[in-house]
Amino acid sequence: MPSMYSFSERRCSALLFVLLMAAAPAAFAQKPRQLTARQVVEKIQNQIGAPLDPNSVDTFKAGDPNTPVTGIVTTFMDTYDVLRQAVAAGANLIITHEPTFYNHLDKTDFLQSDPVYQQKLAYIHDHHLVVWRFHDQWHWRTPDGTIEGFVQAVGWQKYRRPYEQNAFTLPPTTVGRLAADLRDKLNSHSVRLVGDPLLRVTDVAFLPGSSGENQEIRQLERDDVQVLVAGESWEWETVSYVRDAVAEGRHKALILVGHEVSEEPGMEYCARWLRPIFPNLQVTFIPAGDPFQNLPQ
Amino acid sequence: MPSMYSFSERRCSALLFVLLMAAAPAAFAQKPRQLTARQVVEKIQNQIGAPLDPNSVDTFKAGDPNTPVTGIVTTFMDTYDVLRQAVAAGANLIITHEPTFYNHLDKTDFLQSDPVYQQKLAYIHDHHLVVWRFHDQWHWRTPDGTIEGFVQAVGWQKYRRPYEQNAFTLPPTTVGRLAADLRDKLNSHSVRLVGDPLLRVTDVAFLPGSSGENQEIRQLERDDVQVLVAGESWEWETVSYVRDAVAEGRHKALILVGHEVSEEPGMEYCARWLRPIFPNLQVTFIPAGDPFQNLPQ
Repeated sequence: MPSMYSFSERRCSALLFVLLMAAAPAAFAQKPRQLTARQVVEKIQNQIGAPLDPNSVDTFKAGDPNTPVTGIVTTFMDTYDVLRQAVAAGANLIITHEPTFYNHLDKTDFLQSDPVYQQKLAYIHDHHLVVWRFHDQWHWRTPDGTIEGFVQAVGWQKYRRPYEQNAFTLPPTTVGRLAADLRDKLNSHSVRLVGDPLLRVTDVAFLPGSSGENQEIRQLERDDVQVLVAGESWEWETVSYVRDAVAEGRHKALILVGHEVSEEPGMEYCARWLRPIFPNLQVTFIPAGDPFQNLPQ
Repeated sequence: MPSMYSFSERRCSALLFVLLMAAAPAAFAQKPRQLTARQVVEKIQNQIGAPLDPNSVDTFKAGDPNTPVTGIVTTFMDTYDVLRQAVAAGANLIITHEPTFYNHLDKTDFLQSDPVYQQKLAYIHDHHLVVWRFHDQWHWRTPDGTIEGFVQAVGWQKYRRPYEQNAFTLPPTTVGRLAADLRDKLNSHSVRLVGDPLLRVTDVAFLPGSSGENQEIRQLERDDVQVLVAGESWEWETVSYVRDAVAEGRHKALILVGHEVSEEPGMEYCARWLRPIFPNLQVTFIPAGDPFQNLPQ
């Protein structure tokens, strides 16, 4: 019996069938699964490779870790202003190096009735943000991500001593010129100098942020360290140590560039490190910026 | 029988006798007993009146407390340079507000092989100096000696609020002008400002030195405090709190004048307080001075 369909109709059907078969894999292929904040963090921690201390502060600080991530922000500190910028950028996972709630352990018991804390927490919840702190493992990484970011920001790669991540032999300069150079490169509003600005130096060590007196003094005790560049330190601790060293006639100085200023470049470097790990996610670095203002002259 | 002595000789003897009798009380009177360092400190602590916490840091830090005191020096911090000036002034009891050995508890175990510490300790021993720290009780005193010294140094007595030692209603000014004014009055090389320099303010609270985040935030939470003036505070603590408060649109600011700068006037006041207590001892105030240098422009 002849087919009830014409040759044209059968050819058209065949063409449609071929097109359908070609499109089927794409139609049935799964969309890349949207990672949750928890999954993003797990992937980061696997990538670092170093074991995580159970007492680490690298934990979620606010928000629901099961939230699908729309975008990642890295920053030195998730200030209220950084959170607003993250929302404007369409990102909802904020990776902060420093605390969210004004103390190293992000304890909030003493802030329960504080309006500044309440408003910040409400903003995070209202915008379904998730905050994760990336501090310990970013430092424990080899190389330390914060030191690496700083070195790139100030252009000290070529001065680095072999096998040492944070010790440098600079072209001869003075402590004052070195401090001014760092102030300008890092745009710091709060560089503080202990020692003689006219002291000629080449041997510099760097410790980011607030590493603590023990580490700072250990660096300064080295015969091959003349200047320690650090973020911030108590006046009655390393500052007074250097003061006495100088009074004793030792060739030492201390430059405190500011905590944020010393570690923010490390979070810009963090964003660059994250992008190939999460090719399907927008990774944005948002600087918290120097917290201090310049004074009128 | 006529006397064997002439009238002149008898009159001379009588005169000598009278002179001797007049001088005897002075000759036989006891010289004021030279107080030891321990006795000076006991007298100070009795004068304060407040009970001493057994965990107080107000203890002898170096030298022999049984040393007779030749003179008293008060200072914010017994830096190496202050010790040398004390020796030049003939004083051997140094009353310091801050630590001698670079940490709050003046622990020295981690410094045993440190040359800066060794040289300082040797200097104290070689010159038979005694160092006593006057920190806790000077704060617990009513009024707090450090706050009192600061208020007098900046001339805020007339702005003090009734029944409050550290809260002031200033003539309207801006945060920037207030910070510049404090910088100039206190000769600070390291004033740091968080907030809008153009913010108009009158309501100011002051906390000397590094009072800690809990106290600092408690002051800033007050509706009648717009600006907190303090010595120093970690960037991730009160500094970031104020930063968020400002971003949330609150009428707040923070001025960090420097730790030494905020408390040194209190030790000048301490010297004035001590002088009538020890009328037989020279009491000299020796400023430690701002530890920071100005940067070249």
